[in-house]
Amino acid sequence: MPGLNENFLKLEKNYLFINIAKKLNVFKAQHPEADVIRMGIGDVTLPIPEVITSAMKQACDEMSVKETFKGYEDSGAGYDFLREAVSGYYKSFGADVPASDIRINDGAKSDCGNIVDIFSDDNIILVTDPAYPVYVDSNRMNGRQIIFADSNEENGFAAMPDPSIHADIIYLCSPNNPTGSVYTSAQLREWVDYAKANKAVIIYDSAYEAFITDPDVPRSIYCIEGAKEVAIEMCSLSKTAGFTGMRCGYTVIPEQLKVTASDGSEVSLAQLWGRRQGSKFNGVSYPVQRAAEAVFTEEGLRSIRENIAYYQENARIIADTMRSLGVKFTGGVNSPYIWFKCPGDMGSWDFFDLMLEKIAVVGTPGAGFGKNGEGWFRLTSFGDRQRTIEAMERFASLVKSM
Amino acid sequence: MPGLNENFLKLEKNYLFINIAKKLNVFKAQHPEADVIRMGIGDVTLPIPEVITSAMKQACDEMSVKETFKGYEDSGAGYDFLREAVSGYYKSFGADVPASDIRINDGAKSDCGNIVDIFSDDNIILVTDPAYPVYVDSNRMNGRQIIFADSNEENGFAAMPDPSIHADIIYLCSPNNPTGSVYTSAQLREWVDYAKANKAVIIYDSAYEAFITDPDVPRSIYCIEGAKEVAIEMCSLSKTAGFTGMRCGYTVIPEQLKVTASDGSEVSLAQLWGRRQGSKFNGVSYPVQRAAEAVFTEEGLRSIRENIAYYQENARIIADTMRSLGVKFTGGVNSPYIWFKCPGDMGSWDFFDLMLEKIAVVGTPGAGFGKNGEGWFRLTSFGDRQRTIEAMERFASLVKSM
Repeated sequence: MPGLNENFLKLEKNYLFINIAKKLNVFKAQHPEADVIRMGIGDVTLPIPEVITSAMKQACDEMSVKETFKGYEDSGAGYDFLREAVSGYYKSFGADVPASDIRINDGAKSDCGNIVDIFSDDNIILVTDPAYPVYVDSNRMNGRQIIFADSNEENGFAAMPDPSIHADIIYLCSPNNPTGSVYTSAQLREWVDYAKANKAVIIYDSAYEAFITDPDVPRSIYCIEGAKEVAIEMCSLSKTAGFTGMRCGYTVIPEQLKVTASDGSEVSLAQLWGRRQGSKFNGVSYPVQRAAEAVFTEEGLRSIRENIAYYQENARIIADTMRSLGVKFTGGVNSPYIWFKCPGDMGSWDFFDLMLEKIAVVGTPGAGFGKNGEGWFRLTSFGDRQRTIEAMERFASLVKSM
Repeated sequence: MPGLNENFLKLEKNYLFINIAKKLNVFKAQHPEADVIRMGIGDVTLPIPEVITSAMKQACDEMSVKETFKGYEDSGAGYDFLREAVSGYYKSFGADVPASDIRINDGAKSDCGNIVDIFSDDNIILVTDPAYPVYVDSNRMNGRQIIFADSNEENGFAAMPDPSIHADIIYLCSPNNPTGSVYTSAQLREWVDYAKANKAVIIYDSAYEAFITDPDVPRSIYCIEGAKEVAIEMCSLSKTAGFTGMRCGYTVIPEQLKVTASDGSEVSLAQLWGRRQGSKFNGVSYPVQRAAEAVFTEEGLRSIRENIAYYQENARIIADTMRSLGVKFTGGVNSPYIWFKCPGDMGSWDFFDLMLEKIAVVGTPGAGFGKNGEGWFRLTSFGDRQRTIEAMERFASLVKSM
């Protein structure tokens, strides 16, 4: 009989958002008349600009013509046209990332979950808490030891390194999911210095970079000098361009990023990851890559910026509501998330149930992101404007009644 | 400093097909005038029928309209419309596979490579040799012990189980890549019985099922009674519908398939795999899923059968050439592959170089698939008709000159 990877049996039974979906389904079955507003899962709602879907449709047509049909991609790392476009995008905000360091993927979650495959199981993993559950789950699936850096009210939910603690692999996310906090250049430099001192590798999740408006907040870790020797960066078009249902992202592993193997040889992490992907991934759908390419054209960028501005205005509306109610929060600027302290010192899941039952608004309980999330709650600005306003009106009346 | 997964350093440096691509690039640089015919990598060449790309284009349009825009899929297991369509396809050849047992993926390679994550590292893995390199590499990446069942000239390159040897996880592929051999129902029943006797799990790769013409060759392992208690099946639209550049496949894990954990509890493999995918995969692009759905419509099936018939005729032409030259081979029927013995008892890579240098035809050296592949060679029928005929004329003249 095959042995199981029993690390799985020690995990939460379901991925957080599947649990939330289940609770919501139960509520809907019991209250079929309820007018539910979803501000839980960080999913976008605005349609994809036509300049992008037109490019995709053109690629569909190419697939139906023998002369332009595309089969397997030779490398599986993404077509040059898209890698070059991503490289150009990096350049637009001051990060020098050559196309050859970029691999196209089907969304940041896959690479973020799978990247651990190239490391041994005895590494010390550092995760800021609260965090996107994938960082923790993907390591626990291999039975790895995880230590946490506390992000909490005192430090504005932006954990900083503790020089007295050693880590080998560090997960950072800025703008942060779930807290909406951001690292300034100075703070990120501290993390890069800490990684250098510990010869550690940073896995930097920049999925929300497009929401940054503050010029002192870097949109890539590669805006920090020396980061290429210590950091892998993962980004996605999910939030940048509404690609949650399209599935496209990219991972940067700089050629400078090398780790010494036990035999003393210097190993390129990009090459190791390429070997992994060569056996376990076959590249992204060609029409999706053409759609992604269109995102980075002048018209594409202009269109997606309009969508992002729409969400940013939603975020401002939510933040203003919190402010007017005297509810503590982080995020709301530089981020699509608003992370607030549950009124009445309620627990996260209790407040989830209360919001669902009383005002039919779905959010994400902070406790689902780690121990420092207990008592906190995440709302997203990815909804419809009128529905966001409506949700905030309901929220205000709920809080006032408490 | 992070420790590496040093199992990677023991692998072949590159995935087989990347090595072939590199050799080809060197040849092209040296012989820019050469008229190379590629019959190496198993990639299709016929365009995708318009009924399929039209459906995809319609889905692109949906993505640009707020009311029909699709974001994250709730489950990541695939939309019901596609899971139902795949279930209906299974029914058409006599396999009863409910939609709930099916997960949609971005191609069989990903799941085939990642499935090992849910098993412990101390399992005994059985792979028939020669084999698709992913079975071996994905297990070696976790340092697992692999034993091989010999597929060779004596058994028609269709290895059968040895009751005296125990295995926990068994990889089977029929129609076989690379050898083109197939298992009959009686042979497959032997494997299912062996798996039951060993309480083993079979990972069954049916990527080439659409090429089966012989009614005694099952198109799914679930055509064999009792297989649901022992087998996971992986299939792909890559070869069925020319989706190598579109990226869509499916994995079946029957709810009956359970494994006992060390604490004595019965664990559903489908649930374990769902947990893995929940953290490491976000589903397949919505327009790609709509394209895949169209494959299984009446018009879609009719169109792809025309394409498959075209490749089958190519296979017949290649097989006839081998027969007329007295070259031993398997495959050519029920399979897009022709697996032949290198003329003059040459080694596989020597013959690869000879073919490339003398007749500018690229194939795949059998040795790349395992030790029993040494001295054998794989050609694919996925090319253009005229080019296939041309390649066979060149091949005939080469063999006659030896």
